[in-house]
Amino acid sequence: MGNYRFKLEFEVRDYECDLSGIVNNAVYQNYLEHTRHAFLKSRGIDFAELEKRGITLVVIRIEMDFLFPLKSGDKFFVGLNPERVSRLRFGFQQDIYRLPDEKPILAAKVIGTALNERGRPRLPEQLMEQIASGLGMDGRKNI
Amino acid sequence: MGNYRFKLEFEVRDYECDLSGIVNNAVYQNYLEHTRHAFLKSRGIDFAELEKRGITLVVIRIEMDFLFPLKSGDKFFVGLNPERVSRLRFGFQQDIYRLPDEKPILAAKVIGTALNERGRPRLPEQLMEQIASGLGMDGRKNI
Amino acid sequence: MGNYRFKLEFEVRDYECDLSGIVNNAVYQNYLEHTRHAFLKSRGIDFAELEKRGITLVVIRIEMDFLFPLKSGDKFFVGLNPERVSRLRFGFQQDIYRLPDEKPILAAKVIGTALNERGRPRLPEQLMEQIASGLGMDGRKNI
Amino acid sequence: MGNYRFKLEFEVRDYECDLSGIVNNAVYQNYLEHTRHAFLKSRGIDFAELEKRGITLVVIRIEMDFLFPLKSGDKFFVGLNPERVSRLRFGFQQDIYRLPDEKPILAAKVIGTALNERGRPRLPEQLMEQIASGLGMDGRKNI
Repeated sequence: MGNYRFKLEFEVRDYECDLSGIVNNAVYQNYLEHTRHAFLKSRGIDFAELEKRGITLVVIRIEMDFLFPLKSGDKFFVGLNPERVSRLRFGFQQDIYRLPDEKPILAAKVIGTALNERGRPRLPEQLMEQIASGLGMDGRKNI
Repeated sequence: MGNYRFKLEFEVRDYECDLSGIVNNAVYQNYLEHTRHAFLKSRGIDFAELEKRGITLVVIRIEMDFLFPLKSGDKFFVGLNPERVSRLRFGFQQDIYRLPDEKPILAAKVIGTALNERGRPRLPEQLMEQIASGLGMDGRKNI
Repeated sequence: MGNYRFKLEFEVRDYECDLSGIVNNAVYQNYLEHTRHAFLKSRGIDFAELEKRGITLVVIRIEMDFLFPLKSGDKFFVGLNPERVSRLRFGFQQDIYRLPDEKPILAAKVIGTALNERGRPRLPEQLMEQIASGLGMDGRKNI
Repeated sequence: MGNYRFKLEFEVRDYECDLSGIVNNAVYQNYLEHTRHAFLKSRGIDFAELEKRGITLVVIRIEMDFLFPLKSGDKFFVGLNPERVSRLRFGFQQDIYRLPDEKPILAAKVIGTALNERGRPRLPEQLMEQIASGLGMDGRKNI
């Protein structure tokens, strides 16, 4: 289990489980998205304010390895590490571990960019700094 | 099985089923909403155009009787009848029947109103006419 | 704001909001279900054990009044009071209030019953006691 | 736009759209799963019968490139091509195109395997044949 800049704890809700009695694969994307938004909020990134400046953050690629399923009632956390991928792209390593035994559940890599009003990639250096800088641990729920 | 002004056919998708192997209760509301929106579209009601005029349609009450569960792979339809409830409120009787045997699955009553920019109820008579008028059968998929 | 036997706190997640920028109506049913399951768990009601005894708990009716919408980032709680409806039916009053201002968001009434292996209503008196008894405050997260 | 062994048509439902007015990223996984299940059904693969033989099909990896967003009311299809990845792994190329203009929306690669009762990979050759064989076009809705 690695070190994460940001961690968020969750508990599986029964309606997130499907026929096979485990969390449906698509629901992990909900967990990942909610964690990214909480992380960005913790970095002071305000979507509404960005929109006013004509900048929209979008996900352009997701890779997920499903290692072990979560079940009804399981507790878990999502760990997140941001990284700079290129001048126009940022990335998030996002991993899920069951609690309290820290069994690895999912390993994901998410790539994003920012678009201007005309839908063209445009990522101001200052915004990249806010997202992917190496500045210490500041998660809302650092475990 | 009654007569409906509008009908829309669906098929259960596996991700809509929960632990108990049947469609999760909340998903029926998705089916009902999609049917209402398709009905309103069929009546020429354009949300974007309404918003420009400062009118938002909202649901204020839902009653649902769960009669029999839908399962993976089931086909079904939602039947809808609009009605005028009061000067400011319109209603939809929305019932679900399994196909092809027409077994009753759910009976719902949905009450809505329209709000102006300040969040106050305001339902122009012409809009009520469009929603709840008795003008014939015009569903997108009348069975 | 009433007195509740059980309360559970939540925070709106962005993926629960829809086009109109507010929590989608169907998502409130998710909140209500998760709260009921947490309440039943707190009363020592074990679905798996019930299933072995051939008993399935089911919802047969829901009524919801939508009073005010929740938005992205809102915190809120669901308050729950169980009640005995008839010999074969139990009920839950479930209300949602925004936090910290306790603005009323939704008022719901949910009716359930228990089915035996042949799908016939059967609710042992002891189970009704567990669900709807007047025994004090025992919520997992009583506020 | 490639050639696909299997195609399934969909229409975006409003509750699938999020705050930003476009289909939420997680919902694409719902579309992909439903298409895979429909494809497997079209190949005569019966999950219940497999379970009885002690075989469970699971997804172990998903890669998705988000090319362009779908909006409320958009029609689209998911194209699927199965492939043999290794002795124990099968894969699906799954791409989404908007209709009628066939604009590319999403390109995905999904890797799966089969597990026996003890959770160990076990993929009978005959099952692999059913999933990934090159036998002609047999989709339920070949466009």
